Amino acid sequence: MLPFTERTPRVVAARHLTRRAGRDKAGRFLAEGAQAVREALAHGVVHELFVTETAAARNPDLLDRADSLGVLVSTVTDKAADGLSETVTPQGLVAVCDLVDRSLADALAARPPLVAVLVGVSDPGNAGTVTRVADAAGAGAVLFAGDTVDPHNGKCVRASTGSVFHLPLARSRDVSEVFSACRAAGLRLVAADGHASHDLDAAIDSGSLAVPTAWVFGSEAHGLDESVLSSVDDVVKVPLYGAAESLNLATAAAVCLYTSARAHR
Amino acid sequence: MLPFTERTPRVVAARHLTRRAGRDKAGRFLAEGAQAVREALAHGVVHELFVTETAAARNPDLLDRADSLGVLVSTVTDKAADGLSETVTPQGLVAVCDLVDRSLADALAARPPLVAVLVGVSDPGNAGTVTRVADAAGAGAVLFAGDTVDPHNGKCVRASTGSVFHLPLARSRDVSEVFSACRAAGLRLVAADGHASHDLDAAIDSGSLAVPTAWVFGSEAHGLDESVLSSVDDVVKVPLYGAAESLNLATAAAVCLYTSARAHR
Repeated sequence: MLPFTERTPRVVAARHLTRRAGRDKAGRFLAEGAQAVREALAHGVVHELFVTETAAARNPDLLDRADSLGVLVSTVTDKAADGLSETVTPQGLVAVCDLVDRSLADALAARPPLVAVLVGVSDPGNAGTVTRVADAAGAGAVLFAGDTVDPHNGKCVRASTGSVFHLPLARSRDVSEVFSACRAAGLRLVAADGHASHDLDAAIDSGSLAVPTAWVFGSEAHGLDESVLSSVDDVVKVPLYGAAESLNLATAAAVCLYTSARAHR
Repeated sequence: MLPFTERTPRVVAARHLTRRAGRDKAGRFLAEGAQAVREALAHGVVHELFVTETAAARNPDLLDRADSLGVLVSTVTDKAADGLSETVTPQGLVAVCDLVDRSLADALAARPPLVAVLVGVSDPGNAGTVTRVADAAGAGAVLFAGDTVDPHNGKCVRASTGSVFHLPLARSRDVSEVFSACRAAGLRLVAADGHASHDLDAAIDSGSLAVPTAWVFGSEAHGLDESVLSSVDDVVKVPLYGAAESLNLATAAAVCLYTSARAHR
């Protein structure tokens, strides 16, 4: 059979999943590249796998795995694969998956002692990297609140290096709904903000990080709104001991989340 | 006077500074963008400032500052500015600066209790981000060892968001020379490696991080060579509590350096 082109109806349908509206309508998203596809297959969420001939030759294990799971595998042209890609260097391997997010109540049902909440984080690379860090630090959920990017955005999925499949994710435009759900799950809300009056050292010393904590992170460019800062239980800054003006979002989140993980031990 | 073009000799000479060999020969490098130029001016290392008309209109404060310091300011065409830029979106503002690195002995002369050592970190963005994190965590020096990128690389300077100007930097192709200099400065060498037999929690619990420490970081893709791992005093991994396979270099360095900063308090 000839490879599918960018005009083949199933490829056209899949291309709609590169947009949030298309994903929400279909209830599906695209996982791109060998690592993401491997994770997606492991989590049993793949409907169809599009692969170029080159990528098929390079990833025989993934194709075997897809085959054994009964996943439909379709060969596509390079151009068709490029059209399904959101990266600069497409790998020629894209899986159509069920959306992985769940309701807030469901994501917090296990009452995890550590959670990351993203508020207004519009950069998909940052959102994905923080999801990876939250996973590494043992967080039990990542919540995408307000105008935060969709966790199923291709760049977010890629930056998470598989972590979007590892831990419960939920999203809601309504920040206060997210905060209420956290409180109902027994979490103390602590926002990370560079202008806070006290820092992480003071928070450690006070013992306040020993309780179940939802860390609230804002966008790298704009931080958190006053309305968000005034509705959390505490606002803490990562101390800057040298002359650096700030940390980027992922490194600041890494310091905060690992400090909490340590405080919980 | 007409703006300089990409063929004006001074612009041609400056363009040689986009390459390491050209920088080492001239003893100068390029700092690009408003933030880097501001830091470079504050540190008194600027010889000449190239600016497009658009950038000049947007940054009157920087031009005043350059003027008051007696720095030569030259207007350039957009195309000339693009040729001096190493970024995707040139800001039209580039300063020719003295190299900021110093000898190993000089960089460690103050006997700082916390130092970052990069070994074989070829990605300039990673090297710059770790320099920023080291600065934020209060490290007293960053040492660029082995096949690590030049700290004056344009992408490294940019990723450091000014930190290459904030703390002493040194570089040497000879990793053992760097390690010897660290030991002579009273530093314990601790390598971060995902395959270490014990983790950061164990290191904290043992009290071993309370002493002056040089953290050794390798490349994100290849980690550290066996020869490096066998010549340090300790090898420690950042614990991965969830299902993530790894952290990226900058976030792992942030966790390590801030843990040491905390242990030193």
